[in-house]
Amino acid sequence: MNDVQTGKSGKQATVSARISPAGGLDILSRNEVARLRDASGSGMHALLRRCALAVLTSGNVSDDPRSMFEQYPDFDIQVLQQDRGIKIELQHAPAQAFVDGQIIRGINELLVAVVRDIVYVSTQLEQGGFDLDDTVGITHAVFEILRNARILKPQIDPNLVVCWGGHSISRDEYEYTKQVGYQLGLRGLDICTGCGPGAMKGPMKGATIAHAKQRRRANRYIGVTEPGIIAAESPNPIVNNLVIMPDIEKRLEAFVRIGHGIIVFPGGVGTAEEILYLLGILLHPDNAGIPFPLVFTGPRQSAAYFEQIDKFLRLTLGDSVAQHYQIIVDNPAAVAHAMVRGIDKVRNHRLDNKDAFFFNWALSIPYPFQLPFRPTHEAMRGLAIQRERPRHELAADLRRAFSGIVAGNVKEEGVRAIEQYGPFDIDGEPDIMRALDELLQAFVVQHRMKLPGGAAYVPCYRVRTS
Amino acid sequence: MNDVQTGKSGKQATVSARISPAGGLDILSRNEVARLRDASGSGMHALLRRCALAVLTSGNVSDDPRSMFEQYPDFDIQVLQQDRGIKIELQHAPAQAFVDGQIIRGINELLVAVVRDIVYVSTQLEQGGFDLDDTVGITHAVFEILRNARILKPQIDPNLVVCWGGHSISRDEYEYTKQVGYQLGLRGLDICTGCGPGAMKGPMKGATIAHAKQRRRANRYIGVTEPGIIAAESPNPIVNNLVIMPDIEKRLEAFVRIGHGIIVFPGGVGTAEEILYLLGILLHPDNAGIPFPLVFTGPRQSAAYFEQIDKFLRLTLGDSVAQHYQIIVDNPAAVAHAMVRGIDKVRNHRLDNKDAFFFNWALSIPYPFQLPFRPTHEAMRGLAIQRERPRHELAADLRRAFSGIVAGNVKEEGVRAIEQYGPFDIDGEPDIMRALDELLQAFVVQHRMKLPGGAAYVPCYRVRTS
Amino acid sequence: MNDVQTGKSGKQATVSARISPAGGLDILSRNEVARLRDASGSGMHALLRRCALAVLTSGNVSDDPRSMFEQYPDFDIQVLQQDRGIKIELQHAPAQAFVDGQIIRGINELLVAVVRDIVYVSTQLEQGGFDLDDTVGITHAVFEILRNARILKPQIDPNLVVCWGGHSISRDEYEYTKQVGYQLGLRGLDICTGCGPGAMKGPMKGATIAHAKQRRRANRYIGVTEPGIIAAESPNPIVNNLVIMPDIEKRLEAFVRIGHGIIVFPGGVGTAEEILYLLGILLHPDNAGIPFPLVFTGPRQSAAYFEQIDKFLRLTLGDSVAQHYQIIVDNPAAVAHAMVRGIDKVRNHRLDNKDAFFFNWALSIPYPFQLPFRPTHEAMRGLAIQRERPRHELAADLRRAFSGIVAGNVKEEGVRAIEQYGPFDIDGEPDIMRALDELLQAFVVQHRMKLPGGAAYVPCYRVRTS
Amino acid sequence: MNDVQTGKSGKQATVSARISPAGGLDILSRNEVARLRDASGSGMHALLRRCALAVLTSGNVSDDPRSMFEQYPDFDIQVLQQDRGIKIELQHAPAQAFVDGQIIRGINELLVAVVRDIVYVSTQLEQGGFDLDDTVGITHAVFEILRNARILKPQIDPNLVVCWGGHSISRDEYEYTKQVGYQLGLRGLDICTGCGPGAMKGPMKGATIAHAKQRRRANRYIGVTEPGIIAAESPNPIVNNLVIMPDIEKRLEAFVRIGHGIIVFPGGVGTAEEILYLLGILLHPDNAGIPFPLVFTGPRQSAAYFEQIDKFLRLTLGDSVAQHYQIIVDNPAAVAHAMVRGIDKVRNHRLDNKDAFFFNWALSIPYPFQLPFRPTHEAMRGLAIQRERPRHELAADLRRAFSGIVAGNVKEEGVRAIEQYGPFDIDGEPDIMRALDELLQAFVVQHRMKLPGGAAYVPCYRVRTS
Repeated sequence: MNDVQTGKSGKQATVSARISPAGGLDILSRNEVARLRDASGSGMHALLRRCALAVLTSGNVSDDPRSMFEQYPDFDIQVLQQDRGIKIELQHAPAQAFVDGQIIRGINELLVAVVRDIVYVSTQLEQGGFDLDDTVGITHAVFEILRNARILKPQIDPNLVVCWGGHSISRDEYEYTKQVGYQLGLRGLDICTGCGPGAMKGPMKGATIAHAKQRRRANRYIGVTEPGIIAAESPNPIVNNLVIMPDIEKRLEAFVRIGHGIIVFPGGVGTAEEILYLLGILLHPDNAGIPFPLVFTGPRQSAAYFEQIDKFLRLTLGDSVAQHYQIIVDNPAAVAHAMVRGIDKVRNHRLDNKDAFFFNWALSIPYPFQLPFRPTHEAMRGLAIQRERPRHELAADLRRAFSGIVAGNVKEEGVRAIEQYGPFDIDGEPDIMRALDELLQAFVVQHRMKLPGGAAYVPCYRVRTS
Repeated sequence: MNDVQTGKSGKQATVSARISPAGGLDILSRNEVARLRDASGSGMHALLRRCALAVLTSGNVSDDPRSMFEQYPDFDIQVLQQDRGIKIELQHAPAQAFVDGQIIRGINELLVAVVRDIVYVSTQLEQGGFDLDDTVGITHAVFEILRNARILKPQIDPNLVVCWGGHSISRDEYEYTKQVGYQLGLRGLDICTGCGPGAMKGPMKGATIAHAKQRRRANRYIGVTEPGIIAAESPNPIVNNLVIMPDIEKRLEAFVRIGHGIIVFPGGVGTAEEILYLLGILLHPDNAGIPFPLVFTGPRQSAAYFEQIDKFLRLTLGDSVAQHYQIIVDNPAAVAHAMVRGIDKVRNHRLDNKDAFFFNWALSIPYPFQLPFRPTHEAMRGLAIQRERPRHELAADLRRAFSGIVAGNVKEEGVRAIEQYGPFDIDGEPDIMRALDELLQAFVVQHRMKLPGGAAYVPCYRVRTS
Repeated sequence: MNDVQTGKSGKQATVSARISPAGGLDILSRNEVARLRDASGSGMHALLRRCALAVLTSGNVSDDPRSMFEQYPDFDIQVLQQDRGIKIELQHAPAQAFVDGQIIRGINELLVAVVRDIVYVSTQLEQGGFDLDDTVGITHAVFEILRNARILKPQIDPNLVVCWGGHSISRDEYEYTKQVGYQLGLRGLDICTGCGPGAMKGPMKGATIAHAKQRRRANRYIGVTEPGIIAAESPNPIVNNLVIMPDIEKRLEAFVRIGHGIIVFPGGVGTAEEILYLLGILLHPDNAGIPFPLVFTGPRQSAAYFEQIDKFLRLTLGDSVAQHYQIIVDNPAAVAHAMVRGIDKVRNHRLDNKDAFFFNWALSIPYPFQLPFRPTHEAMRGLAIQRERPRHELAADLRRAFSGIVAGNVKEEGVRAIEQYGPFDIDGEPDIMRALDELLQAFVVQHRMKLPGGAAYVPCYRVRTS
Repeated sequence: MNDVQTGKSGKQATVSARISPAGGLDILSRNEVARLRDASGSGMHALLRRCALAVLTSGNVSDDPRSMFEQYPDFDIQVLQQDRGIKIELQHAPAQAFVDGQIIRGINELLVAVVRDIVYVSTQLEQGGFDLDDTVGITHAVFEILRNARILKPQIDPNLVVCWGGHSISRDEYEYTKQVGYQLGLRGLDICTGCGPGAMKGPMKGATIAHAKQRRRANRYIGVTEPGIIAAESPNPIVNNLVIMPDIEKRLEAFVRIGHGIIVFPGGVGTAEEILYLLGILLHPDNAGIPFPLVFTGPRQSAAYFEQIDKFLRLTLGDSVAQHYQIIVDNPAAVAHAMVRGIDKVRNHRLDNKDAFFFNWALSIPYPFQLPFRPTHEAMRGLAIQRERPRHELAADLRRAFSGIVAGNVKEEGVRAIEQYGPFDIDGEPDIMRALDELLQAFVVQHRMKLPGGAAYVPCYRVRTS
């Protein structure tokens, strides 16, 4: 790499370099390269620039999506056609992505994934390759994006554990996620997360050490993200399979279609959203009898977190909801055991039903769970949080409530809406509302809603408990 | 494989087995599997069955496309979704594809390629993924089919030699193609052919031995075929990259876009067609200055063949056409040398022009060369073989004339048309017509038009020389 | 593995299993298998049992070599000849080496290394394959043991950093060694240590994460140990190349012959021994001009440690000794930079001198440094710590003094001798003796001599300062 | 490679080049490099030069060992220690080993094997590492040479077919050996031969094509040779595992210890020697019950050859000898089937007896079969070819008789002895002598004793039939 130039952008050290994409960047056609270059029309370039910067600032911990561009205002990326394939030209990129002028190879691969997914999704959308108007069409779109990203692997026994949890957790909790990852890794399990820091990084790090001890080489550390999240939760470079789904609902569908089991670590509102999304699906009558191992776990110090979640879930969705999950406190080996056993059931169920190991076709995900939820003030007001509704529908609206709060806290559009119109109003049955408010207050107390700069958390919502 | 059953279909030994697809069969979606199963509607199943049978009879030498199904009337293929991916179920398949009940792995891989390409092209055509109305759109379709088939590889220096020539050649000629392949292989060159027997197999076989001696492992033996040809020219299982282009014109475009040089061995009318296609493009003013190594070669005994071709080309297209090719008689090492030197020029030209190594974007292929030619009696009559036309246009019509004769000889539709309406009439300038007739007669004399069963060749055309 | 039986040995959970050796266990001859089985005569079986148990208790932290057998009194190992090669039968082995009844693969590989080296060294010694009577012969024995263990790799640019330091260090120091390892790993450097815990594990763990981020696969984590040390410093299973040298002097020679640079982290007496061994060699007039990057480093809190070492070295060996090392406090990236720069010089020097990259033939190691030192009371009394001696000789005797103290602290034979005859007497020039005593006292204060059970340190030596 | 110089040596084109050894050249110590360089004392350099030249003239067909040096009188080889390992410097080497100035990689690997084995054997012999005075010691020496050459592989199911037969056979026979190799290769069998041309090359070539079709990559083409044979039977570069045994008896022992079955193609006296060696062992009472698949096969045209052999064997050793072999005429697939079935029995036998797959420890090879036979005139006269002797002893002497004739025909020492003292006298029971003479005459008639230059064969022996 002769083309490396170091510099400063504002107060940040930067590097400008032309890099060769690592690993499997699909060959791009002239059209596709042209489209990526087009800075104005399609909006693809802006998206590319945003996701690429997120990848390059990997390791930064900040919940403010705007600050990234404030730190690197001159950053730009271009994709060039060249003799040997493609070159990626970076201007004023964060120096932290480089070691002695050479880009870290894991980050290079993540850049490649960003380019690949943005090109693919945009091309498919433009050419009408996806049919997003019904549930089958959306599931196929999810399938095809994952397939194009080489996430789906045939001939592998079920072994993919999805780990959910906060990106901003305590040191104890982080160490615990590493230990769980280590125990999973010792048992030959692969890891899939939302690919940011915290509970999304710890299990991968622990598994990396365990995989090294087991001399396991074909390890998969899958990160599933989406453009609105990636900036706040930069992928960590251990991730060796990154896919950028077009929106949060397809990201969630991707998790439950590819994961053979899910572990939930302590987190904040985002984690609660994920829990409700999954339970809403598992509670659906169509999905009765489909095994899906689900474990909530944390270190001893965090036991209260899952007690509160459990209480809230039982209150809102009835005690029988608890048969879908298992709470394990402070016992990484037991968590790994539970996953091994649960995944074995998944395996047998798929064999019996001749279903694919790599994609959970059998799971029914109702259309409302798939439909992107834009958390406007109006949409948030429209949620119907009433216990007389079918449990999976109630779970869906609770999920949306949490989704709106996540957006109001950390997503660009949401933050702006809150700044302009004030907090969201969330309405519903009083005792659920009270329980919700308690839960959210507990998150605040436990510093699970902390924001950059250490500022005190100002809620982006108002729960109407009366 | 417990499911193997052997049997008889007519006089042929058959095997019925459920096999796991080898290597990179892309994961198929439920939709795609369903479409492959659909025996009636889309016609995909019939196409799949035909191409699959061709692959399974690999090694059979017959020019009669219909005989294959007469030999294996009960053959069928189904693609099934299963836990670990896909299974391919074969009913009454040719026993020769199996060794002790186990399918030969190379044949398994070719089956996978057949399924992959048929699914991909059909899906793209149905969803409007290809724009076939202009030259750019067709080139992109060619690109995308090749990319989907993993034929395009970045990060590899130009090293792909396309070998053209007859599938039914003499023993001497066949041995010679092996020797040329051996010399190419010693120099680290990869081979691409039409993937049938004869001149399409010899170079790969020779290169295989040379690659073994050079301990070269990442060898590419690329076969490019199309549904109308595959039955007559079953791919040989050394081919480890097979792609089925949708029609003969896209197949020819694939050859010239991915090959870094072309060697033409003796052949028949099909070989003449390929030569005229390529020269028509190279003679186009837009392509002046683009290096493209082209060597005609054969053993001493076949020297006459290229003398006749050369004479015919000079007569019809002018002496200057000869600057585009080099004739080398009976010297495999010299042929390999010429390719190495020529490809080196290609490499430098691509570097200078920042053009991809893996796809010759710079070459202009005019729309008439891309347009599928359906050789009806009317279309054959409509050719304008006149010397006053621009040379590349004349070359295009001469190409079509040969294409029609190939169809009349060996393609299902063509053979049927000839049986129904009698031979094609080809008209044009008398001395070209005379030269054409002489050339074709020479092919007959040299047994380059021989048909199955050893029957005397009955021409499928009438040249109007007056 | 059907043969797994779990049990208890004393208070410890155990597993009995017959395992297939992982990776490159050389094929053993019938003779060799017989020799390993022979429990009485050759003593090989006892050695095998001891080293194997050390490997199986990997991760245990204890300085008392005897306690291991007290914990697993029934442990035994047999090597059996079988159809597919060799089987290793373990009886009552520590359960911690297994995950769900399956041995951790890294530990399996370490077992294989133990068997390989014990067989090889014993066979060579018995057959007179080594000539240990002169310096050339000893160096060849070191070379051949390393070669047999596949430690020497041709065709690799110099990139091996040896890390020395304590196996029992503070949490801060351990975290720091991980960070240094991480920075080394980001730069593509491989790690070699004494392969125990603490400073011998941290750099490998950090490098493992960095190598994962750099997608580096052919990583070498080399552990060099010897029978007297392995029990106290069980190899950690990240080590993927283990070699058991016959004695401590050959182990030290192995480090300096294969390492391209050395980093010293804080440690105790053992670390001081290693420093003096290396400086003794580098100070030898024959080695003038041979580049050998040497960095002493630790976190801010440990700055005092290297100040004391530095002071002691300058006092005893003169200020000019300091030109052979560089002290870097609390800056992992700077340490990695210094290594990269230093190793670059090593590379150029080897190229200029046509010397092997994989073995530092050029370095002269005088016979006294190679001669095994048995730290009897008599030998310890015989050391001549006098400043008028040539510096490399003085360094050699200082090295021996530290070696004796290590033995008296943690080696079976040494501990027993101290129990029997009381502390060693070390004599010499008064101000050196005073400095030595101060240094050793500082180690005690800094808990660098702490022993199992948290007992207060009772010195195994008496320094005669008058 | 900048150091390439082309030239002429006598009438031959030559290349002088410094090459990097390919693949697994073990790291050499300074001692070993020095010993290789030593042109005078040890004789190692002369041996190295001879074997290296044989490897470099691979493909040359000549039975005259002296002619090689006459053609390349200035050829020399040096092994140099360098930074990255070892360099091999070739002076005036045969140009045919190079393609465009670059050594063929397979030949490079064979050179490496030559260096490795010469160094290893010489070092072991010098240091007394082998005990050659008894049968166990010799078997261990064979084992250790094979192990050092990485020929013995654990964890592989029995699949190694040894092919014996003439190096100078007819075109039909050669094509047949290729077809047999092809059928073996389709069934995943590996090939071991004496590694020259003819029946030693054909099976490897056929298997190479079949392995390519089966996409088998970890193929083993093992060549077992010895210094006296290598010059007459240059290894072909498909051989990817070459080992040079110290003498012909250890070479024969290597074949029967590592092969899981043996196929004998037509050959001459050497082939007869191999047959008698093997039958001598199989007839030994100690080896009763040990399965060892043995097939004699050739094309239809060569049926007579095995009829004669069969007749001779039955006459001399009794009809029951025929239960140890199977004669299959003109049916490559049946030969492969017989091997698959036979090897399956070998596998089960080894499993039952817990014997290694990679080395046939169980087979008893009596000392007289292991003892090198120097075919002096006196030794030849001393053979006792008498039917009253135990069959395995008689077989041993018959083997020696053929061995002497091979030496008299093609080995340097033997040819010289015949030139000096006239033909060998072979004496024995008249009807055996007659049968022997007939057999040898038939070999002459069938051109199985032809020598270079097409000269008529002048027998190097006199059979005393009265």
